Formats: sequence, C-alpha cells, structure tokens
Amino acid sequence: MANYTFEDFTPGRRFAFKERTLTAAEIVAFAREFDPQPMHLDEEAGRASILGGLAASGWHTSAIMMRMLYEAYIDGSTSEGSPGVDLMEWKRPVLAGDTLGGYCEVVEARASRSRPEIGIVRLRADVTNQRGETVAICEYINMMRVAEKEADHAHG
Amino acid sequence: MANYTFEDFTPGRRFAFKERTLTAAEIVAFAREFDPQPMHLDEEAGRASILGGLAASGWHTSAIMMRMLYEAYIDGSTSEGSPGVDLMEWKRPVLAGDTLGGYCEVVEARASRSRPEIGIVRLRADVTNQRGETVAICEYINMMRVAEKEADHAHG
Repeated sequence: MANYTFEDFTPGRRFAFKERTLTAAEIVAFAREFDPQPMHLDEEAGRASILGGLAASGWHTSAIMMRMLYEAYIDGSTSEGSPGVDLMEWKRPVLAGDTLGGYCEVVEARASRSRPEIGIVRLRADVTNQRGETVAICEYINMMRVAEKEADHAHG
Repeated sequence: MANYTFEDFTPGRRFAFKERTLTAAEIVAFAREFDPQPMHLDEEAGRASILGGLAASGWHTSAIMMRMLYEAYIDGSTSEGSPGVDLMEWKRPVLAGDTLGGYCEVVEARASRSRPEIGIVRLRADVTNQRGETVAICEYINMMRVAEKEADHAHG
C-alpha cells in the first residue's frame, strides 16, 4: 500500500495493473449471476457469436478493472469513491485464458470548490490483453482527500 | 422471453425491471472479489463513510442492472451485445436490504450503415430503490439484429 493522497495525482502519472489470467470458470460464474447470455456461459455458443469464444461479460471485465485499480492505487489511499463513469468502452472480446493487465493514467486533478478537503481526480484506465491489445477503456472520476487534512481527519 | 428484435425498440418505449432485494452477504461477496474497500465489506466502516452503511460497490450495482436488463428484454432477443457505455452514474448509495427496481427506456434507434442486418439502439437505464429514488443511471448502446434477417440467420 502506498497510501496515496490527492497530491500524488499529477496529470500524466501512471499506475500499473498487476497481470491476471481469467479462467473459463470465472467467466461462467460471473455470467450465471449477472449476465447469463449464451456467449458468456458456453464455449460453443461463444465461438458461434461475434466474440469468437467463451467471452467475459463486459461488466465482468469492468469489475476486474475495478480490482486492478484497487490494487494499483486505491488500497490504503484517501479515496472517497466515485460518482460515476464518463466512458466505458469494451473494445475487444476478453476470452477464457486471456491475461489482462494495463494501467491507469491521471488525466486531470483539481480542488473541489464545495469541499476544500477533497480533490477531484479524473483518470483513464486502459485494460490490455497478452497481445498488448486494448480490450477496455474507462474514464472516471475519483474523489481523494488532500494530505494536509488527513491529520484532522484522524483526530476527528 | 419476448424474443425482441430491433423493430421493437421505438424511442420512448420502456421495459420494467423485476424488483430485487440486495443482501449484506451479496454485497460482501462481490466486494471481496472485485472491490474490497472497507465500506463495501463491513457495516461499521460503511456507517463511518459518506455512504452511511454497508454499501454495494458501484460496479456491483452496475452488474445487478445488467441482470435486470437481461431479464427485461435481452433474454431471447436478437441482441448482439454492446460496444460500451456513454455514462454510468452512481447517484445514491445502495445499502444492504435495499430493494432495487426501475426500468430502461429507448432513447434512439437507427440502422447500422456498415451492417444492414443490425440496428443500433441507445437506451437509458434508471435503477431505483424502495423509496423511488434513482440510485444509478446508465446510457448505453445495444446492437440488435433486425427481424427480416432472422430467417436468413437461422438458415445460415
């Protein structure tokens, strides 16, 4: 854990994702619960679809990206969560056996007008596969507390 | 299953979500796998956060919305998936015990220029809680095959 605060988020800074290989069992388990379309449940149905194989739900790819963001910079940080996402693109199929990685990059960082203890950070995540192809892009906001208020917060 | 095709998606048409109550166990299980921040894992940490209680990860709310979309119109339809999301807003906390519902509405429907057998449908999903408050909004594209090509597809 790096215990990042708002001040660490300078435009252009990148945080690398830890690589992770996705199994068929994980794809099917997520799909059964949240997105039980045939191409997410069955290898043959996946091959018959435009996805070309047993393919993760886009929302599964997004959830895995969330875990990668957590490990890359959120864990131990002053994150106060996100109001949402401006863009989530699923650009290529994520198939069983694919190894995902990539990074997120700070696009913009500014103080909050209404809450001086908070900074508003815009980031862009690029999720890639083992061939270096981008499979997903996400642009989102992360609210982070500023460092100088941390002492107050701890006492409060 | 209503076996919807592109022709069914006229602007303004709504598809209702089946209501679903979210348990603490579900919130924690998703968070352990994808978003292990304290407010998604522990009731006390949630109460101490701006979320006010054990709260679902935003990505969990999105995944539940996906399931609701599946049950509302995707199951049995000619859906060919989605290239992504233009907007995903998590507007209010989703807490353990909340009952989610809502609907999605067709915003726009147009033919694909490059693939005449496909129509491009833009929808907006509103996820609400038991007080009728909107907890999440999503605007996204769904590609749907047109009906008159269905016979060809079945033969092909």
